[in-house]
Amino acid sequence: MDAVDTIVAEVLRRLKAEGFGAEAPAARQAARGIPAEMSARHVHLSAADMKALFGQEELPPSRAISQPGQYLSAMRVRLIGPRGSIDNVAVLGPLRKATQAEISATDARALGVAAPVRLSGDLTGAAAVYLQAGDRMLRAEAAIVAKRHLHMLPSDAARYGVRDGQSVSVRVLGERPLILEDVPVRVTEQSALALHIDTDEANAAGLGK
Amino acid sequence: MDAVDTIVAEVLRRLKAEGFGAEAPAARQAARGIPAEMSARHVHLSAADMKALFGQEELPPSRAISQPGQYLSAMRVRLIGPRGSIDNVAVLGPLRKATQAEISATDARALGVAAPVRLSGDLTGAAAVYLQAGDRMLRAEAAIVAKRHLHMLPSDAARYGVRDGQSVSVRVLGERPLILEDVPVRVTEQSALALHIDTDEANAAGLGK
Repeated sequence: MDAVDTIVAEVLRRLKAEGFGAEAPAARQAARGIPAEMSARHVHLSAADMKALFGQEELPPSRAISQPGQYLSAMRVRLIGPRGSIDNVAVLGPLRKATQAEISATDARALGVAAPVRLSGDLTGAAAVYLQAGDRMLRAEAAIVAKRHLHMLPSDAARYGVRDGQSVSVRVLGERPLILEDVPVRVTEQSALALHIDTDEANAAGLGK
Repeated sequence: MDAVDTIVAEVLRRLKAEGFGAEAPAARQAARGIPAEMSARHVHLSAADMKALFGQEELPPSRAISQPGQYLSAMRVRLIGPRGSIDNVAVLGPLRKATQAEISATDARALGVAAPVRLSGDLTGAAAVYLQAGDRMLRAEAAIVAKRHLHMLPSDAARYGVRDGQSVSVRVLGERPLILEDVPVRVTEQSALALHIDTDEANAAGLGK
């Protein structure tokens, strides 16, 4: 979960028709820009899988990341699929109810799995992968391609005139400019204003690291 | 250069202001759709580099690809950068004036090179990489990230009301819908109507293989 520095995404004008009435406030906000954050591939573990892979209950923090309430651990796993494997995948804490591997579509092809595009936390149809740490390994139906989304606080939502769950379009101002359509808004008290995209989307937009 | 089957990109309404007067014809065309073709990483060789890497003058065709006048050869090279290498990269024919390695931004990161986004044929600032075939190796300032573009025949250009070199926006109808902005139009007698994008862009759009 590396923050893409010095990059802004400009929130758009063309909010989807459904449920949106006032375009002017959003247009005014657009000029300020919204930070885009690129999520690199990573894994969340359940308590049971933490124990199974690393033989311990706790997942100690290594350092904070831009997502409030989450942290990077020193733990790394290998993801293995029928076609290939990916080493050195970061495990993010805290522990979750279910193990989840967030990978890019590029990764999914390299692994040889059909990972569906899902919002984090939705493992419906998630692809089976093996997670390896040292001499321990387990299989989990855990692999998804993270669906892009736009985090904001309730105060941001009020300013933009959008509501939780609404789909909006977001213009991303990289070297390869594009407009992401069908971006769900996630309004929570914890989340600072930020567009979350994966490495494929960041590369397609020419955002770089 | 794999054609993305069953996928269409719908040319968009918002043709850039400059030089475009008649929007209605384009809007009518939009309903028909334009095929999107994903270019996987590949290499073009100069005659000198062909000789240096494979010890022969000719690059025999293996099979045709969707780009008219180009073909897939049976030759494969390894690309090597300061950070990593990529095996089994296809060599496309015919031979060209300059050796060119078209890679994705994902590949560039894996190799550890700063490949600029360039239209094929423009090697300005191209990154240096090593090309290996068996026990032969050479260094070439050849690596670029191919800039997306929209191929069309003069008759298509007339229908859409666009001209060679103009920038347009293209809506891509994948599982992750988006609008590519700043897509140059390339009008030639040889090129059938098609949007050319790379693997990062196809993945970001959710087009799959």
